[in-house]
Amino acid sequence: MVIGIDLGGTNIKGALVDGEGAIIAKLETATRANAGPEAVAGRISGIITDLEAMANDRERRVPGIGIGVPGQSDQAQGTVIFAPNLHWHNVPLVKYLHRITRLPIFLENDANVAALGEQWRGAGRGSVNMVMITVGTGIGGGLILNGRLYSGTNGSAGEVGHTVIDPDGPQCSCGRRGCLETLTSATAMVRMAQEAIDRGEETDLVRVENLEAKDIFMSAEAGDKTAREIVNKAAYFLGIGLGNLINIFNPDTIVIGGGVSKAGDILFKPLRRTAMEQALDAPAAVVRIIPAELGNDAGCIGAAKLVFQAVESQDHYSLHRKGEIRD
Amino acid sequence: MVIGIDLGGTNIKGALVDGEGAIIAKLETATRANAGPEAVAGRISGIITDLEAMANDRERRVPGIGIGVPGQSDQAQGTVIFAPNLHWHNVPLVKYLHRITRLPIFLENDANVAALGEQWRGAGRGSVNMVMITVGTGIGGGLILNGRLYSGTNGSAGEVGHTVIDPDGPQCSCGRRGCLETLTSATAMVRMAQEAIDRGEETDLVRVENLEAKDIFMSAEAGDKTAREIVNKAAYFLGIGLGNLINIFNPDTIVIGGGVSKAGDILFKPLRRTAMEQALDAPAAVVRIIPAELGNDAGCIGAAKLVFQAVESQDHYSLHRKGEIRD
Repeated sequence: MVIGIDLGGTNIKGALVDGEGAIIAKLETATRANAGPEAVAGRISGIITDLEAMANDRERRVPGIGIGVPGQSDQAQGTVIFAPNLHWHNVPLVKYLHRITRLPIFLENDANVAALGEQWRGAGRGSVNMVMITVGTGIGGGLILNGRLYSGTNGSAGEVGHTVIDPDGPQCSCGRRGCLETLTSATAMVRMAQEAIDRGEETDLVRVENLEAKDIFMSAEAGDKTAREIVNKAAYFLGIGLGNLINIFNPDTIVIGGGVSKAGDILFKPLRRTAMEQALDAPAAVVRIIPAELGNDAGCIGAAKLVFQAVESQDHYSLHRKGEIRD
Repeated sequence: MVIGIDLGGTNIKGALVDGEGAIIAKLETATRANAGPEAVAGRISGIITDLEAMANDRERRVPGIGIGVPGQSDQAQGTVIFAPNLHWHNVPLVKYLHRITRLPIFLENDANVAALGEQWRGAGRGSVNMVMITVGTGIGGGLILNGRLYSGTNGSAGEVGHTVIDPDGPQCSCGRRGCLETLTSATAMVRMAQEAIDRGEETDLVRVENLEAKDIFMSAEAGDKTAREIVNKAAYFLGIGLGNLINIFNPDTIVIGGGVSKAGDILFKPLRRTAMEQALDAPAAVVRIIPAELGNDAGCIGAAKLVFQAVESQDHYSLHRKGEIRD
């Protein structure tokens, strides 16, 4: 049994996960990023200690801890280089955690970790070349290539949300124009709805307080014309993005995660149609586009898989070296 | 020593390549695709037989043959599934070649093979995560990820030329609009020049017969305003494409191949500037954008590497299995 931690901007989730990817126990606490990195590390430590005790109660040893972090990390240094939601820059997270646990710790970007989870136990089971795209406030991505997580040269691969689809499109938080994220995220859909309301379009959305993407999907299902147009527009741009990814990666599976993944046919029908129109024949012939299955558990399960992957690949050197940090 | 073949729409190139990637001997003949696949296979066989004799003269055994094909191939079946320039559909190339040689044969897409060559002996030496993008009549791509060629689920990965950068852009040969290829290939540059001439712009390009991209680069160097604008526009769109690839792959190296790679600073300066502006900070920090080095030899050298890679990875099963086809 290993411990998988999903460190988010709002909550820290932790789980004790067995070798089959089943969750044996789950804990959650607030992140309270404002209290600073050492305090957050302390809260993570608390979850680790509790989960380890639960494993010991079951007479099982925990060989390591995997952590999905909302940003970029340096596995060799054991640091979180940059995590915008936490306001972290070069935080020595592994050092902080080694004060309370002697276990090897594996850091990885949260989108990558979610992809690993979905490929191991979720929608991507059996997939060899899988692209996961998480559509929420922003758009993140994780890549499984040749059966293994691909995280790039300094761990920042998979930023599919920041690929320009339309150089004259809306301004993105990253400073560029027309990134996929500005055209099709939950945030983008809410923005389009607000614009339609401001234009005075006749729509049920005007009556929704604190409008969210799921309200737009519900109104579209109910036949609201404006909502339907927004969904179709988002599906169109996301379909273009997926078509690009299909042509680049020739994957066997694309997994759509995030809140949007629960939208059902109202999104997935136009999405699949556009993506397949946009893709070349050869890669289109072998790809399926499916919603994620693990929901909020993907992070913890994928984080646990980081540890099993190191053990499975007999990465003894790595485990040993990481173990040494504790001395 | 192994044999590397670069099968093109116009010419077949073959080389005897040693374990260091040096070309010992080189042969070339016309493809004559109109004569049909069996005739082309016969011409490839001729080159193979001659190169094998040269190896034997040097008292060296050839363990296998690598072939870069201009399209999609199925390594397990030994067939070329689709090669538009040759008008081939489901051609059993390995079966044809096994009539004259008993050696194991490895098929791979030509853009992938060129990338492998550049990573082995060219601009990408030492690269672990490399994207090669070949800008010529069209735009092709090859991916080296975690130090190995990544060719996708059915061998059609890396079609970076067919990623949409501008959904309202010009029509592409693939049927979509605003593919990278329509915005920045050599063909696209010539089209832009023709449009400028048709608009009556004052430009030296009007005096060039059979205008090619290299003429546009030369005129831009000489200060021609129209030519300079075309180069900057092509560099801008290619830069957006590279920025997207940097954010997706977090590569250590991007190699630009094709005729355009010889353009020098007039292209590479604005190209690097746009790509770095478009890329996120983390992946931008570790990537270099450099021209290819091997020119027309990349195909043969990379094709040879397919064989060495199989030998090096002790892919005995694969070599053995392929050897069995001859019996």
